[in-house]
Amino acid sequence: MKQILILGGGKSSTFLIDYLVAQAVEKHREIILADLDSSVAEKKLQNRPNTRAEALDISNAERRRDLIEESDLVISMLPARLHPLIAEDCVALGKHFFSASYESKEIRALRSQIEEKGLFFLNECGLDPGIDHMSAMKIIDEAKAKGEEILSFKSYAGGLLSPECEDNPWKYKFTWNPRNVVLAGQGMSRYIEQSRLKYIPYHQLFKRIKPIHFKGLGEYEGYPNRDSLGYRKTYGLENIPTMLRGTLRRTGFCKAWDILVQLGLTDDSIELNPPQGSSKRDFLNSFLPFDTDRSVEEKLTDFFPEMDFPTFEKIQWIGLFSHDPLPIYQGSPAQILQAILEKEWALEEADRDMIVMQHQFEIRKGDKHQKLLSSLVVKGENASLTAMAKTVGLPLAIAVDLFLEGKIKLKGLHMPIKPEIYLPILEKLEEFGIRFEEELLED
Amino acid sequence: MKQILILGGGKSSTFLIDYLVAQAVEKHREIILADLDSSVAEKKLQNRPNTRAEALDISNAERRRDLIEESDLVISMLPARLHPLIAEDCVALGKHFFSASYESKEIRALRSQIEEKGLFFLNECGLDPGIDHMSAMKIIDEAKAKGEEILSFKSYAGGLLSPECEDNPWKYKFTWNPRNVVLAGQGMSRYIEQSRLKYIPYHQLFKRIKPIHFKGLGEYEGYPNRDSLGYRKTYGLENIPTMLRGTLRRTGFCKAWDILVQLGLTDDSIELNPPQGSSKRDFLNSFLPFDTDRSVEEKLTDFFPEMDFPTFEKIQWIGLFSHDPLPIYQGSPAQILQAILEKEWALEEADRDMIVMQHQFEIRKGDKHQKLLSSLVVKGENASLTAMAKTVGLPLAIAVDLFLEGKIKLKGLHMPIKPEIYLPILEKLEEFGIRFEEELLED
Repeated sequence: MKQILILGGGKSSTFLIDYLVAQAVEKHREIILADLDSSVAEKKLQNRPNTRAEALDISNAERRRDLIEESDLVISMLPARLHPLIAEDCVALGKHFFSASYESKEIRALRSQIEEKGLFFLNECGLDPGIDHMSAMKIIDEAKAKGEEILSFKSYAGGLLSPECEDNPWKYKFTWNPRNVVLAGQGMSRYIEQSRLKYIPYHQLFKRIKPIHFKGLGEYEGYPNRDSLGYRKTYGLENIPTMLRGTLRRTGFCKAWDILVQLGLTDDSIELNPPQGSSKRDFLNSFLPFDTDRSVEEKLTDFFPEMDFPTFEKIQWIGLFSHDPLPIYQGSPAQILQAILEKEWALEEADRDMIVMQHQFEIRKGDKHQKLLSSLVVKGENASLTAMAKTVGLPLAIAVDLFLEGKIKLKGLHMPIKPEIYLPILEKLEEFGIRFEEELLED
Repeated sequence: MKQILILGGGKSSTFLIDYLVAQAVEKHREIILADLDSSVAEKKLQNRPNTRAEALDISNAERRRDLIEESDLVISMLPARLHPLIAEDCVALGKHFFSASYESKEIRALRSQIEEKGLFFLNECGLDPGIDHMSAMKIIDEAKAKGEEILSFKSYAGGLLSPECEDNPWKYKFTWNPRNVVLAGQGMSRYIEQSRLKYIPYHQLFKRIKPIHFKGLGEYEGYPNRDSLGYRKTYGLENIPTMLRGTLRRTGFCKAWDILVQLGLTDDSIELNPPQGSSKRDFLNSFLPFDTDRSVEEKLTDFFPEMDFPTFEKIQWIGLFSHDPLPIYQGSPAQILQAILEKEWALEEADRDMIVMQHQFEIRKGDKHQKLLSSLVVKGENASLTAMAKTVGLPLAIAVDLFLEGKIKLKGLHMPIKPEIYLPILEKLEEFGIRFEEELLED
């Protein structure tokens, strides 16, 4: 009986676990779920056949290695920073390794050892990274096979709310790691447009947005991700004139978020430690000029004369004008803002999240130019069974199954960019309603 | 005969050296000037009596310690990052230590050893830090002695050009470390106004300026320095309601500099490495949106609709619209911008720099409120004998002389904030035309 060790039983593991557990008896596999808290693992497994819950403190090297040792492959759903640790154990103990996180340079350093030992390591096999790679590579490989040239590839993705659940002015709630949302875009973003390298500093990023339309959903807006250039190599598009990857928000979000950025509320470089008892209003005021003759609201609108009412309403809605106490009194501005938003943007149990992704290709076919839009929309069921967990967990679960069935025969360190990996995964995902809709526009 | 070891014979050491050398014979002292390049030291000393030039590679620990060993005290004019190394040697070898740089935490860690060995370590005894401390502490100590309360202390300083040498639209040239000028203000700045803590992120800093007037010179503008709060403790003003330290530029500078900041040209976080042969115009364009229908000039004015002609002229003057090649093709945006500016803002031999400093106090004296302005203006002679070198070097030279004469009897780790240090230094500086003009305004 093959043993599959899953590390981490958080929300994003739910679909992954259920997919693998459902096949476990039939395919003679045992699913071992290890979490810091064994009751979390037990709850996820619900005593289903061929499953076993284990408690594991990941810093306990002996226990960790014992669990890895007795398994055939390891799926790490732990925070990304812990992956190198697990990957090193897997190399040492000769086990295959799967994750939905970015292939880190620590893991790349293991490449030759992975190859020597004949192991299979698959990273970036979740949603983003994951489904984005697979769906893009399918189009790219098909175009190349037909002798077409890809002139432009822009790709946007977002973890948002299903429209009927957009019940606040931001039309946004946290459906994944809040810290990553608050810090998103810091540093300098870069992309290439018609062979010209373009750079956008953080404080301009949320002004440099593009409208993105999804059929049946309406208007969204996309801002460029930190680094769109590295993907040219990943996708075999080294000479593509235009390449941009971006993040989607509901229209109007970026304009209001930019106010927070401009004020400095997303700064993570200083310890603010505001005085005990100070209010959200004080927090906002500390980033506005001193002027006893003007209210906080007046100073804010003086500071941003172009601010419209929908933007003002968003700032108001998260309570920044209120005299309510801050939720925390230590940390950086970004940490304090995050604590405020975690209350205001909390997903309620009935809320349905939504994953949106859109690839925009411009392809030259002989004399013809074509525009190809490929769009994905996946809605969650509720705050537990999210579209995020589904789209992160299923590709990884399917990859593990395909590998154990011998349908992926690769060895070495991989991302899901080869047809042998992405074709059967994309096919299987369609059964779960994860399906891209294509739209072809002749120029 | 007392031996004084001066480490570093750069431009900022000129006045320091000349002051000490002029007294050397009379006061039975030998001045040893050590520089990486002994010919630099020889040129500075010009074979004057009781002087000796030495070559010293500071990383050569044995040679460095030999020189320190044979001296009675050491003046470090080296880059600030090297001071801890020298300070540690001085502690180990029982030598006194003088510098014009900030008291670092590495040097603070030596405090108890300095005390145990009965040594005198004086830091922050140049211009800023240095003359700012001394002139401020004189006013603060006098006010306290008279039972007055200091309600507000704002202090601005700048290393600029004498007005007759302001022959470019920026009215600015580099009179000290260009890298520090280009990176100035990065991070979050903080100050306190009427007991309210205020924070300004970098991308707002050059918009949050205050006009500052100097009699006979006209209008300048000041932006807040990184941390104004730490000085409350240094100056014994822990409970002062308003405290701000700022940097001065000629009026109009900040508006144009802010354009460079907004575009991202001062970013030091990424390697830009523009293509070989690309122009200054390409460099600017890479931070502007892609739009083949608009020129770089049009895109810039679209991007900053509020930009006025004097601002546009400044951008034009540093050549950012020109097709001239970039001076360097590797490094961060800030490094490339610095290389451009080093050519455009180079001090010519006849140029006279100028130091301006202004303390603005609000003092309560019984029922009366007073405003006290204390202003310093020092002009350089030419590009070699700068006001910067004079105001950095003389306070340190005077301090060394006073110490060797037994007029400063302190031991331990110090900044020039005690009357015993600052009174005789300020008095002596007046002989060199370094004199604050006071203006008292009753409220």
